[in-house]
Amino acid sequence: MRKLPFTAEKLEEIASAHPTPFHIYDEAAIRANAERLRAAFAWNPGFREYFAVKAAPNPYLVKILSEYGFGCDCSSLPELVISERCGVTGERIMFTSNDTPAEEFAKARALGAVVNLDDISHIPFLEKVCGIPELVCCRFNPGPLKEGNAIIGKPEEAKYGFTRDQIFEGYKMLKAKGAKRFGIHTMVASNELNPEYFIETCAMLFGLAREIEAAAGITFEFCNIGGGIGIPYKPGQRPVDMERVSAGAKAEYEKHFAGHPPVALYLECGRMVTGPYGYLVSRVRHIKDTYRKYAGLDATMADLMRPALYGAYHEIVVPAKKDVPASETYDVTGSLCENNDKFAIARKLPPLAPGDLVVICDAGAHGHAMGFNYNGKLRSAELLLRPDGSVVQIRRAETMDDYFATLDFSGLEGFV
Amino acid sequence: MRKLPFTAEKLEEIASAHPTPFHIYDEAAIRANAERLRAAFAWNPGFREYFAVKAAPNPYLVKILSEYGFGCDCSSLPELVISERCGVTGERIMFTSNDTPAEEFAKARALGAVVNLDDISHIPFLEKVCGIPELVCCRFNPGPLKEGNAIIGKPEEAKYGFTRDQIFEGYKMLKAKGAKRFGIHTMVASNELNPEYFIETCAMLFGLAREIEAAAGITFEFCNIGGGIGIPYKPGQRPVDMERVSAGAKAEYEKHFAGHPPVALYLECGRMVTGPYGYLVSRVRHIKDTYRKYAGLDATMADLMRPALYGAYHEIVVPAKKDVPASETYDVTGSLCENNDKFAIARKLPPLAPGDLVVICDAGAHGHAMGFNYNGKLRSAELLLRPDGSVVQIRRAETMDDYFATLDFSGLEGFV
Repeated sequence: MRKLPFTAEKLEEIASAHPTPFHIYDEAAIRANAERLRAAFAWNPGFREYFAVKAAPNPYLVKILSEYGFGCDCSSLPELVISERCGVTGERIMFTSNDTPAEEFAKARALGAVVNLDDISHIPFLEKVCGIPELVCCRFNPGPLKEGNAIIGKPEEAKYGFTRDQIFEGYKMLKAKGAKRFGIHTMVASNELNPEYFIETCAMLFGLAREIEAAAGITFEFCNIGGGIGIPYKPGQRPVDMERVSAGAKAEYEKHFAGHPPVALYLECGRMVTGPYGYLVSRVRHIKDTYRKYAGLDATMADLMRPALYGAYHEIVVPAKKDVPASETYDVTGSLCENNDKFAIARKLPPLAPGDLVVICDAGAHGHAMGFNYNGKLRSAELLLRPDGSVVQIRRAETMDDYFATLDFSGLEGFV
Repeated sequence: MRKLPFTAEKLEEIASAHPTPFHIYDEAAIRANAERLRAAFAWNPGFREYFAVKAAPNPYLVKILSEYGFGCDCSSLPELVISERCGVTGERIMFTSNDTPAEEFAKARALGAVVNLDDISHIPFLEKVCGIPELVCCRFNPGPLKEGNAIIGKPEEAKYGFTRDQIFEGYKMLKAKGAKRFGIHTMVASNELNPEYFIETCAMLFGLAREIEAAAGITFEFCNIGGGIGIPYKPGQRPVDMERVSAGAKAEYEKHFAGHPPVALYLECGRMVTGPYGYLVSRVRHIKDTYRKYAGLDATMADLMRPALYGAYHEIVVPAKKDVPASETYDVTGSLCENNDKFAIARKLPPLAPGDLVVICDAGAHGHAMGFNYNGKLRSAELLLRPDGSVVQIRRAETMDDYFATLDFSGLEGFV
């Protein structure tokens, strides 16, 4: 059974002030995790985690993380603006986009962000739009590489990055066009739980960096291995041992960069930074007993798409019934007019009744952020449980006015 | 090659006034299709199509459809409000919801909507919330029925509806509680192209209605067979022959309802009403050549989720190059930082270049409606191509202010 940062009584108290459903983030746990990550990589002088804003694009979370030296990994104009408005600017922004429009390159440049190029064709495009910056980075896609990385998935089917030949050529072009400072990036997996995977990525990227340095006559000042660090959604899974990742990365660093000027190691994690520390809280609305038993919640897939989208598993806890045996089997659903609007299928839970508060765990990343308004569903509020036990609303719930904001009902009058 | 309702020149003209991406609906085709549907079922005196608002929740489309006698199939409060604001009220609303909150039942009742109950437990719930209306409907889920309907899928795994035993009991309860007028509903498939399927559904529902009438001592005034009528997304597929569906339904009607007072046949279609007549128009932003060729558009899965969500096929047309051979193979992508943000994989198309306008077909239902804001992507505008060739904006594009509307950046100042 998952340990929650609130008791059943505390949760009822919160829910009496904030109508369900809502997302609630555990600030103390986010801070402790951020501190642990920073400490794990303290051996690397320039180490930085760039928080993948898309995982949880809330300025309060970004601001908390910035206290630990975290930057922002942005890939769209609104994400750049969130970062800016949180005071995270300059090289504390990594702009890792793809299929990038001109105005987003321009904004990234204006903020002094590190521009991480996704494609060789973006070099002349960037030059034309806003000039080649002094510091620049390219994203490597290893494709169907012969050597190593069996667990790397199928990067040759991914839309991201430069091929090996292109990345050599790319840095030569960038140098010729006046770039003076260089970084290199790769990211080829998502939600991976094996720490060795990330060490292999370091080995691959560090080795490539040295080859490029020799071929292009440049010196790298950072290596960005991206994100993709998984979290233990399912019972029995274990979090990635970041100390092990760090130790392995350090060994690879020492092997590849002995005698080299310092090279900063960068990460772009989202999921592991906020994921386990966010909870979707919802009340049971109806219990239904047909060919299966259904517990219908007041939350829907608009609040958390992962189970419907990916068949993802999220642990569900009923705080007031934590000592009651899980004797019933429910499909836990929302009210969306879509049959895959289910948070869990055939899940063993204590007997539920309308009004029960249920907590859907690990909703702190790619949760609220992925919500849609399909079927007229409105996205819920976000709350922050502060270390002192107080609760702050960090995003209000959507209203029907928000839902209708892009419509002009008045024009309907004269419409024939 | 799909026939489009605009020439390449006309489309460039539209795109010069309305920045891409946008959805555009072909009003003349929507009207012709609505008229054809109405005519096909003219034999049935009370026939009504209730447009499934969730497919394309735009009031201008609802208003156009209402001219053909269409009602609205709503399943949430915002959808009820759209219907109301389009002047579609009373029994022209079918409120087919599930896991329904009290306030939505209350609003449906206040509008005089037909309340279609999803579960037997909703009978006492509805009674408590706002009383049992005179006219009421129950949704049947056939479950693992022995008889017939092999193509019906697995309704026993669907969260919707009453079991067979429950629906008999439900009508008796409703009658005892004062209901005087009755309808019955089922819907057990989605995007089905076989017309015989819908005729079998009629046979099943009509037969069940007669059994219930005998057992409960009630008389049905309508049978609602739901929606689920598919559209030909893929080349070679054919639209459902609605005249065949109608003829088959009529034969079943005559078989089951000979000598019975008139029974209205209702449909709740969304996809076949607007789907083929809406187009997502986007410009090529970048061409990328790595392990595959990529055409990167200015639209993303935020504008059309179906390919990313379901691996759905949508035909792509390049109006200005319709006479150029499809000699290249592209993954057609958006810019979202998610690898499944692809409109097509390994699609044969004419050679593309940045600036080309591409048209993604069959985006008129479950297109704009399913869009999210993940990764800070903003949902696009909706345009209506009127029968006279003029173009009206029927929904503006989202702005960053919309995206930030639920955030309070000012609170960030004093946040420590």
